[in-house]
Amino acid sequence: MPEGRTLLVVGAHSADFVWRAGGAAAVAVASGGRAVVLALSYGERGESGELWKEPEQTVENVKKIRHTEAEKAASALGAEFRCLDLGDYPLRVDDAALMRLVEIVRELAPDAIVTHTPEDPFNPDHPVAYRAVQQARLLAAGAGVPSAFPGIRPPELYLFEPHQPELCGFVPDTFLDITEVFERKKEAMEAMRAQKYLQQYYLQRAEQRANHARRVSGEKGIRYAEAFQRVLPQVVRSL
Amino acid sequence: MPEGRTLLVVGAHSADFVWRAGGAAAVAVASGGRAVVLALSYGERGESGELWKEPEQTVENVKKIRHTEAEKAASALGAEFRCLDLGDYPLRVDDAALMRLVEIVRELAPDAIVTHTPEDPFNPDHPVAYRAVQQARLLAAGAGVPSAFPGIRPPELYLFEPHQPELCGFVPDTFLDITEVFERKKEAMEAMRAQKYLQQYYLQRAEQRANHARRVSGEKGIRYAEAFQRVLPQVVRSL
Amino acid sequence: MPEGRTLLVVGAHSADFVWRAGGAAAVAVASGGRAVVLALSYGERGESGELWKEPEQTVENVKKIRHTEAEKAASALGAEFRCLDLGDYPLRVDDAALMRLVEIVRELAPDAIVTHTPEDPFNPDHPVAYRAVQQARLLAAGAGVPSAFPGIRPPELYLFEPHQPELCGFVPDTFLDITEVFERKKEAMEAMRAQKYLQQYYLQRAEQRANHARRVSGEKGIRYAEAFQRVLPQVVRSL
Amino acid sequence: MPEGRTLLVVGAHSADFVWRAGGAAAVAVASGGRAVVLALSYGERGESGELWKEPEQTVENVKKIRHTEAEKAASALGAEFRCLDLGDYPLRVDDAALMRLVEIVRELAPDAIVTHTPEDPFNPDHPVAYRAVQQARLLAAGAGVPSAFPGIRPPELYLFEPHQPELCGFVPDTFLDITEVFERKKEAMEAMRAQKYLQQYYLQRAEQRANHARRVSGEKGIRYAEAFQRVLPQVVRSL
Amino acid sequence: MPEGRTLLVVGAHSADFVWRAGGAAAVAVASGGRAVVLALSYGERGESGELWKEPEQTVENVKKIRHTEAEKAASALGAEFRCLDLGDYPLRVDDAALMRLVEIVRELAPDAIVTHTPEDPFNPDHPVAYRAVQQARLLAAGAGVPSAFPGIRPPELYLFEPHQPELCGFVPDTFLDITEVFERKKEAMEAMRAQKYLQQYYLQRAEQRANHARRVSGEKGIRYAEAFQRVLPQVVRSL
Amino acid sequence: MPEGRTLLVVGAHSADFVWRAGGAAAVAVASGGRAVVLALSYGERGESGELWKEPEQTVENVKKIRHTEAEKAASALGAEFRCLDLGDYPLRVDDAALMRLVEIVRELAPDAIVTHTPEDPFNPDHPVAYRAVQQARLLAAGAGVPSAFPGIRPPELYLFEPHQPELCGFVPDTFLDITEVFERKKEAMEAMRAQKYLQQYYLQRAEQRANHARRVSGEKGIRYAEAFQRVLPQVVRSL
Repeated sequence: MPEGRTLLVVGAHSADFVWRAGGAAAVAVASGGRAVVLALSYGERGESGELWKEPEQTVENVKKIRHTEAEKAASALGAEFRCLDLGDYPLRVDDAALMRLVEIVRELAPDAIVTHTPEDPFNPDHPVAYRAVQQARLLAAGAGVPSAFPGIRPPELYLFEPHQPELCGFVPDTFLDITEVFERKKEAMEAMRAQKYLQQYYLQRAEQRANHARRVSGEKGIRYAEAFQRVLPQVVRSL
Repeated sequence: MPEGRTLLVVGAHSADFVWRAGGAAAVAVASGGRAVVLALSYGERGESGELWKEPEQTVENVKKIRHTEAEKAASALGAEFRCLDLGDYPLRVDDAALMRLVEIVRELAPDAIVTHTPEDPFNPDHPVAYRAVQQARLLAAGAGVPSAFPGIRPPELYLFEPHQPELCGFVPDTFLDITEVFERKKEAMEAMRAQKYLQQYYLQRAEQRANHARRVSGEKGIRYAEAFQRVLPQVVRSL
Repeated sequence: MPEGRTLLVVGAHSADFVWRAGGAAAVAVASGGRAVVLALSYGERGESGELWKEPEQTVENVKKIRHTEAEKAASALGAEFRCLDLGDYPLRVDDAALMRLVEIVRELAPDAIVTHTPEDPFNPDHPVAYRAVQQARLLAAGAGVPSAFPGIRPPELYLFEPHQPELCGFVPDTFLDITEVFERKKEAMEAMRAQKYLQQYYLQRAEQRANHARRVSGEKGIRYAEAFQRVLPQVVRSL
Repeated sequence: MPEGRTLLVVGAHSADFVWRAGGAAAVAVASGGRAVVLALSYGERGESGELWKEPEQTVENVKKIRHTEAEKAASALGAEFRCLDLGDYPLRVDDAALMRLVEIVRELAPDAIVTHTPEDPFNPDHPVAYRAVQQARLLAAGAGVPSAFPGIRPPELYLFEPHQPELCGFVPDTFLDITEVFERKKEAMEAMRAQKYLQQYYLQRAEQRANHARRVSGEKGIRYAEAFQRVLPQVVRSL
Repeated sequence: MPEGRTLLVVGAHSADFVWRAGGAAAVAVASGGRAVVLALSYGERGESGELWKEPEQTVENVKKIRHTEAEKAASALGAEFRCLDLGDYPLRVDDAALMRLVEIVRELAPDAIVTHTPEDPFNPDHPVAYRAVQQARLLAAGAGVPSAFPGIRPPELYLFEPHQPELCGFVPDTFLDITEVFERKKEAMEAMRAQKYLQQYYLQRAEQRANHARRVSGEKGIRYAEAFQRVLPQVVRSL
Repeated sequence: MPEGRTLLVVGAHSADFVWRAGGAAAVAVASGGRAVVLALSYGERGESGELWKEPEQTVENVKKIRHTEAEKAASALGAEFRCLDLGDYPLRVDDAALMRLVEIVRELAPDAIVTHTPEDPFNPDHPVAYRAVQQARLLAAGAGVPSAFPGIRPPELYLFEPHQPELCGFVPDTFLDITEVFERKKEAMEAMRAQKYLQQYYLQRAEQRANHARRVSGEKGIRYAEAFQRVLPQVVRSL
């Protein structure tokens, strides 16, 4: 893979990127590329419960705290953070919001996009995010044939790891070695103070995915890894 | 992908490799690596009908012709040809034959192995070959944990394209650009004179897979491609 | 399973619950629990053809008859009947209707919800009902993490048997013995006079599912059973 | 199959029918039946890039050209062409448009409907078309039980071949011999001048599907074929 | 479908054909064709328990009774009965037995073969029978290319309905109207006195499959039907 | 679930039961039941590499050590340990070995059997074990109809968690709370000194599966869990 690639990570809520693709973002930046994180919402209703325990909490304040946390986490990874603030539980992406997403994909012309799985029986918003990203990618790139609009080069499309992978139909086919950037991912996870209980969980996942990566490749140096699933075929120069 | 990789192509019959992975073999060699073709049988019964039209044909003579053809084809690709001569229609791989296969995998310690799909409702021998290869790979490499025998580094495992892909459950996730070596593949195909009717078919497939590869990647220079399906996850350095 | 559980059965049309989960409702009540039936529509267009054969029939009258029938059937089972009256053929559940559904799930805090399969190539409304129920369950319970709203304990989620199970992707993993309450189900089925032709059909299904239940468990006393498919894992105290 | 059948081909864009079901339309007409082509849009944005290369091109003019081309192609096949002109990239079918589609299905009462696959990771509009057709078919025919509206006899439902079949989950179970009408399909394809690059591609597909049809049936006379996938069971008089 | 077709029904045990494809056999004969039933075993151990309740019963006697019953049932259908007598629970088909099966397929050159599903978690022998039939069909017909042996025209391949269809992965795509021959099937079922408990079960199935067939086709005259699943694509003359 | 149940855990190698079903065995015993562990081999070749690092190690000695370790681990759980000693890498279960397995299943008449997944691309022996167990269960219990041999009551059948669940097609539908017996499982894991590197891995899995179990059920007290997949439907008394 060449250096200098642009990676776009799209999450339904502002913290999703950290646990699921924080390492991928850090790797992109560390290898001379660019990583942009786009949250469709702040997860202010569904995933900010710790903040709502504060008396007199307001939705605006929750969003503000979530924005600050996400920016801090992104910054630890070397990534930019943006949010469409579409609301959550339920997340709705109407055609106007879809077009905003299309514009961002067109503007960034990323080499790869990473997002949620199409199915998630534990979350009402994740599949909505997938469908929006999948549509936006096609609308920005066209169908691979001449079209009325300027099309970007078709970005690769990956799914990141959901919380309960087997129950979301997630079958990893790509293990990314994140050993060298793992301290950054840890720092990013620590920034998400509203969801502290996930730090230990995803630390363990990184070790397990590294175990899987070592077994399948024989590369003994991998200590931490992230798992992804490609949605579309890849083009290679040799087997 | 680094240069100098070793590719092992295993076919149930002596001609399978040409149509399905001839380009992959040529690419491996062209990029400074090594390609070994292993046929489990000569396809002397099921796929040599043209030769049997000769009066007084014998099985020994058919095998000899098939061997010569396969060697010529392999040679056009820069590959070595070997055959276990296990018989076809039906192909049977008993434990002794399996151990011969294990020994070859261990000896070559290939970076990647390419073989048939696990299902093929049009061929009695292709799934038998898959199972043997899958077992041999595991027996040669071990389970990724310390074992009683010296284990090679686990080779990547690919399926090559069957004749009727959708009906074999084949879902390509890897398109290999074979534009630069296509003349060699053509030459190899022409060497398989007992199955001339397949040359046009696989020429067209190479053009179509190139169309698919261009569409998914935007790489307009691809004129010919081969399609493969990975059986196991890959480990990458960046998305 | 403890006694005193609350079961919520959600159907696209007012008669669905009788054929598919009438036994489950009766069992819940018979074991000291509560069963609530929620119809999203009266099925007044798509499934009330017998009533439309009456001259000068009106939609309001059809709904009234369907309401009376459903209440009578529910009553035979010991269950409560409610209807959101959203219209059918096609059934549409907009966000306002979804929120009404969420409120009902939150109010009842059921131990288990039973509804249609996600796919049904023979019915335009059943998959719509599934999606609404699946979303409502998640919005009422949250994602299993602290949230902005009070979350109920996550209800179990089951699919009931569609008319043509294999073609809806229905794979039963749970057989409920309804032998002891079968007379109630029969009475409930007889109350649905607008769809008389289904009574024999579902009587036979109950016998067949009992045959399957006996075979898999060896419990010879099961004469009638209903089949369900769990959508989410169950937590058990022993295997 | 009896003569005199009515075939309805529904495409997301005005050219889809030619490549994917042109032969089926011509066969229906040649055997004394009727073929109607319904385009949901002109594909004026996503699939008319060649036309947009003209300076000062307008959307109205593109649609006009596409209409003329489609009519010419349909005419070569002996089919009628209609277009709902709903717009493309993205195609949206709201309930009003759905009802127009229902009315057309009811008016034609076709023996069979052919349309896109439910999944297509390369096109944002094809799955939208599938869902609309699937819903319209059910709303026009009812659920197979008496209903409030006059129901037509349930049409058979087929998927035509997508551009990259394996990646759309397309598994052909029906090969249609189009040898006798192939000149008409060729003429129709030549009428689609805005998408010339597809003519060679689908000529090759017709030859390959003929190869598959010959292999599975032993019918050596098939030179050109189209592939389809049935969505619903068929009723037969003998095996 | 033309008249005068030859149908081969292969069952693991001598009674399988009656319940699952008795109608198909009768239809083949009634329309001027031929039906041959081949049992791989007598089911003397696994499915003849009623007979073993007789004191001093012997395996030879059980086989004799089963043979008589099967012949009587076949005769009611107008079919021929043969048995390879390979033993059951477990059924084993070694290469010699496979070659006997190949010879029979070659001798009969059937238009269609019907057999068990590849998966059946309730029966150890059914999947063994499927694999043998699938291999035998390929070895008798060849791979669709010239071969060393005389190949028959490739027979169509169907699966008949297993006892618990959803749990065997059975998805019916073909409903055969057996209304006109149903009396013969009933008579055949009554001949299987060792498995009386199945007569009611399969009578009900025939009614339900007829219900399904009516719904999907609108053909109201179907009272009894059998369900099948095609394994390979069919070639048609029109959609 | 009633107390006093008998659980049979069958592993391809002598250590499999500890990591994958150690908790289930301990729970069975703790609730007044019985747990028997049956290893088909000692894993002496494929999974005892640490032991082979000893100079002059012999296969007999490796087996002896593995036996002692497994007994110690089983004892910590309160379970009995048996081994068929069939050899590993590759494991082969011929019909004689299968009959020994059938006898054990018949002797124990377990309420539930737990074993490997049918697919495991990382291990040559696990699928072999699954097939043997699945066959043995059917041969011991019969097909649910009267048979020539005395049949036991059909045991429930579960798959335990493989090392890389998604890649083995493992979809957990049953989470067993093992919090109360976790100290015993830990002790059992510590007894497997030849595979120390797995202790941390399966400790983490137990925590993660507990997280999943808490989320799906709302039962906050679960600290450790094991995941299983049911192969056959369960019969229940209420939903």
